[in-house]
Parts: sequence; C-alpha cells; structure tokens
Amino acid sequence: MRIGLAGATGLVGREFLALLARRGFPPGELRLFASERSAGTTLNLGAVALPVADLATADLREIDVWFASIGKAAARQHAPRLAAAGAVVIDNSSAFRSETEVPLIVPEVNGAALSAASVTRAALAARQGRSAQGAIIANPNCTTILLATAIAPLERAFGLEEVVVSTYQAVSGAGRAARDELFDQARAFARGEQERHAHYDRPIFLNLLPKIGAWHGGDCFEEIKVARETRRLLGRTELPIHVTTVRVPVERCHSLSVYLRLRWPVTAGEVEAALAGAAGVELADLPTPRELARREAVFAGRVRVAPEDRRVVQLWVVGDQLWKGAALNVLQIADLLAREGWFESAAIA
Amino acid sequence: MRIGLAGATGLVGREFLALLARRGFPPGELRLFASERSAGTTLNLGAVALPVADLATADLREIDVWFASIGKAAARQHAPRLAAAGAVVIDNSSAFRSETEVPLIVPEVNGAALSAASVTRAALAARQGRSAQGAIIANPNCTTILLATAIAPLERAFGLEEVVVSTYQAVSGAGRAARDELFDQARAFARGEQERHAHYDRPIFLNLLPKIGAWHGGDCFEEIKVARETRRLLGRTELPIHVTTVRVPVERCHSLSVYLRLRWPVTAGEVEAALAGAAGVELADLPTPRELARREAVFAGRVRVAPEDRRVVQLWVVGDQLWKGAALNVLQIADLLAREGWFESAAIA
Repeated sequence: MRIGLAGATGLVGREFLALLARRGFPPGELRLFASERSAGTTLNLGAVALPVADLATADLREIDVWFASIGKAAARQHAPRLAAAGAVVIDNSSAFRSETEVPLIVPEVNGAALSAASVTRAALAARQGRSAQGAIIANPNCTTILLATAIAPLERAFGLEEVVVSTYQAVSGAGRAARDELFDQARAFARGEQERHAHYDRPIFLNLLPKIGAWHGGDCFEEIKVARETRRLLGRTELPIHVTTVRVPVERCHSLSVYLRLRWPVTAGEVEAALAGAAGVELADLPTPRELARREAVFAGRVRVAPEDRRVVQLWVVGDQLWKGAALNVLQIADLLAREGWFESAAIA
Repeated sequence: MRIGLAGATGLVGREFLALLARRGFPPGELRLFASERSAGTTLNLGAVALPVADLATADLREIDVWFASIGKAAARQHAPRLAAAGAVVIDNSSAFRSETEVPLIVPEVNGAALSAASVTRAALAARQGRSAQGAIIANPNCTTILLATAIAPLERAFGLEEVVVSTYQAVSGAGRAARDELFDQARAFARGEQERHAHYDRPIFLNLLPKIGAWHGGDCFEEIKVARETRRLLGRTELPIHVTTVRVPVERCHSLSVYLRLRWPVTAGEVEAALAGAAGVELADLPTPRELARREAVFAGRVRVAPEDRRVVQLWVVGDQLWKGAALNVLQIADLLAREGWFESAAIA
C-alpha cells in the first residue's frame, strides 16, 4: 500500500503524519506532496525525515491511494488527475461531496455504503487505461463527521425526526493562519499591545464569530455543509436539520450542542446505552475541547431527555476535528478499502 | 430618590456606578455599601469619590430604593431587613425569583405586570410600621433577561410553541475571579508558563465549560433558571424551553443561539419587523460579543426561517450581561417605579 499525502505541510497533513507514525506505518511506503511553494522541505514520520515534493510534478505511478487535504480549488484541479492515473483518491475538501457518484463516508455511520468492489473496479479501469474516471471518495466536513458519528446510533435505535445543532468550532478548523491569529492576539493582550487581525474581519480572542464560510442566503456555507452532508450520511434526504455554526477562541476540538426530536419516547439511560454501544463514540460526563485533543473517539455527554416530552433529547458532543473530523476518518476509509481487498487488487494490477 | 447600592465593589456594582454616572445621577443621593471585608474603600461616581460602608451597619432610614447585587446567600440575609425598613429592594440574585409574591421584571417584557401601586403600598406599610414584609422586586438571571427581551416580541406577534437555546456565556458573568482567571491564563500562555486554575476545575482559556452552576439532576442551575424565569416572564408556564448553558473564553456579553417554533408560518422579514419595532432590541447583521460591550440594547441578528417549515425561526442574540442582563435592567425597574410615582409617595411618607 503506497500512500501519497497531498497537502502534507498543512495542519491536517501533519495530523496524518502523526497518526501514521502512531500506527508504525513504514516510511518507505509514504510520499509527501504539497504545492510548489511548500515543496523542498522535509517532514518527519516518527524519526524518519521525508522530502516534500511538488504535487504538480509527482510520479503518479508510485501511488495506490492518495490522502488529499489541499482545499477545494486545488482538489478540483488535482484530484481527477490523480484518480485518472488509477489510484483511489480520498479527498478532504468539499469539492466532490455533493456528487452522487462520489461516495461520502464516515465508516461508523455509512461504511456499508462504500462498495469497495466498485471503487476497485473504477480505479483499476483507470489504471489500465480503460476509463479516464478513476475513483474519488469524499471525506465529509469536520463538523459533519462529529455530528453524524454521535447521532447515527440514535437514528438507528430510535429514529430521528428533527435535529437542531449549535456549534462551538475551534480555530484550527480554519487552518494555521487562523490558529496563529488567535495565539498572536492572546500574546498582544498579555503585553498590553494592540491586537491585529487579518484572517478574520475582527478579533477572535475574547470573541465569537457566528458565521463560518461565505454567505449562501441566510446561511453560511458551513451550516449548509453540515445539514446537507449529515442528511446524505444518514440516508435521510428530508430530515429537518437546523444548524448555527460559530467560531470560538478554542485551539482544537469542535463542540456541538445538539437537540434531537426522536420518533418515540426514550429514557436517558436508553440513549446512553445506544451511544455507549456505538463504534467511534465514548460517553463522558462533561466533555471539554481542551482535554480531548488528540483523542480518536467522538465524546458525548450531558445526555438529557425532556421530562415534559420524552422524545426530546439533548447532547453535548466534542471531538478532535483534525483527527476524527479529518485525518483519522480518511485513514479509516482506507482501512475499510484494505479490509475489502483493494490494496491486493492494486498490487495485482 | 435616595439610592443605596449594596454590593458596590463587585463587577455588577461598578457597572451601576458607570450607568448612574452616564445619566448624571446626583452623588449626594447615592450611598454605597459592601460586605465588611470591602467596606472602607471609595469608588467614583463620575469625578466624585464616594465612601463604601458596611451593609450590616447601614442607616436604613437614608434609603428609598436599594439596588442589591450581593449574591444569593447575602440577599437572603439582608434583603428582607432592608425591605422591612420601608425601602423598595431590587435584588439581582436568584434568592427571591421563584416567590410568586415577588415581582420578576424585565420592563420591555412584563413591565405591565409590575403594579407600582402595590409595591408602593407594601413599602409604605413597612415604613410606617404597619407590616414587616416590605417590597422586594427580583431582577431576573442575566441570560434570561437577554433571551426574554429578544423573544417576547415574537411571542406577542406570532406565539411561541417551543424554544431551544444554546448559550455562549462570558466569564464576567461569574464575577471578577473568573474574569481574572481567564486573563491570567492568557498571560501565562503568552509567557509559555503553566496556566493555573482555581475558580474553575479546568482551564477556561482555549476551552469551553458546558455547565454553569451546580447540578440539579441532568441540568445545571443556570439552565433551570433560564427555563423557569423565561416562562414566568412570558406568562407561559407550560412553554417547552430546552436550554444548554456553556461558559466560553469571552470577557463580556453573553451570546445565544436561539431556535423557536412559532404558532404559524412567518417570513424572515416579518420576524425582523417584529424585532425592529420592539423596545430594547436592535437588529444587527452579525452581532459579536466583543464589539457590543457597554451597549444598552439586546442585539438580534442572523434571522432565519426554515424553508421547509416556516414556523421554525433561528436567531443569534448578543447582549451585555452586566448592563441589560443586570445593572441596566435594575435601573429600568427603578425608572418604571419612578414613572408610577413611587418616589413621590416615599417623599410624602
């Protein structure tokens, strides 16, 4: 299994490296790529320094599977080219998430919807020159992954009728510039200096920004992504999902205040049992973002059932949006393909 | 109108002074009080330094109306004594908010429910020794005041059927120690030092604490206060209100993500018109807490109506919880009494 990591120098790219190092992934099987601007440096996988090459000039025959975290515009430009060369491309941008022929996958939620056989067929056809299409798999939006992982067990056990979500999203979800801007503002505050801002249109330190992404009518794009992708992951195209996304001065881990209306009345114990038994979810009394950085699970706590209407459930959900919300979920999709035999097929081809 | 300010040295007490100075209130009519520990200092009303005396030994005959922001336990101890001496006591703690004979007032929401005549009668009866009861008026919880001010116009115009609120509450709502802890942690971060915490059981800098106040079953006390007091203010004892309260690393101004289910379908324009015409509310495109400190209004923005169910409305609400959520609302209650003639009655007595 030869992995190409596109966007290796970004925040998510570095988290891929951390996760691969934790798993003892063999450095010889990994190639790192970035834009021309970032190429030429090296990054460590564990103790081994690996060179970062220019994605535009990569030797595509060396790679079986691509992990791409290079933004929407670059993904539109590069992912079809990488896929056409016969690799499976798992893309972390929003470029392909709405294309019905591109699988959108959270393994614990809809892993069964990933037909490894059809992915394999598409990739092999491209590799053998029988098709220019190839195989792209889309990794969902980070907030969507956390939400869907936490509520899918309740959809399965009790059925969802309505979802209301307010988010508390960490700055690292917006990349390194946003994170550094928060840190710089905290340092300026400590020195009694004027804080500057460039990434955001006002300070994020000691502040909240109740809009993430560009406006699409009254919604911001993050809200549209969460609603649209969650419906697709749950296979519930008509499910009412009302989302408000807010950037908060937190470094890492997104948190979600979740209200659910279920199909029938439950007890808090029944909800907790459904969550405790679900893959990828851990129950916690009071999950907080700072304490849960670099944890693989999505943490759910503060499970409440409204006494006057026991179909109403409230949850507080926290997860590392750079791990389960991004790099880890991509790795788990690759694991799913590996279990289904894709990498053997690729080796044979 | 001789005002006694109890709790003058606290965060809310100082905001009373700032608001009275803005209004040009005559210093000769104001007496400042605090606990024995804080007594003996002076505080400024505009350019005039006023001594802070010990509340326990105050000359009660000097005061017509008390503004008390001294916490629940101290309010239980002192407020009945101050009221029994014949002053009107406007108390900012939760001590008396559930007592049905104590008015709980946000002037824009239920000012009409404040019978100045009966308050006056009760206070005069105490002053003249005909009753030991006196007159206490309760100021609601800070988050409740902001929520109720924003949604009361929609209750009046369209009728509310359900309310779901997730809060983003500033540390100054928990007093000076919490605010200083956030600031100290930011400074320690900037110096690369270990952050300490004492007020909270974990850091609040770069973090979120999804629990405010002590546990009462699955809810924290702040959530119970918001639901219970909002129902009382709106006169809707059965209204379903689902609240999640979260402390965020913001200095000042509470923010609320609000979902409402109305009795009938609306347009965003109709909702905005109802809010724009409401006393105490201002519409804003993107209200953020840092930019709205020391503003008197409650700001509502991001008004959305769900396209698939036009009874569902979402709002983003921000207000200064030390002003409209505390000191300003207390002053507005006093204004209401003044308009109804209480102070003339007190002078006659």
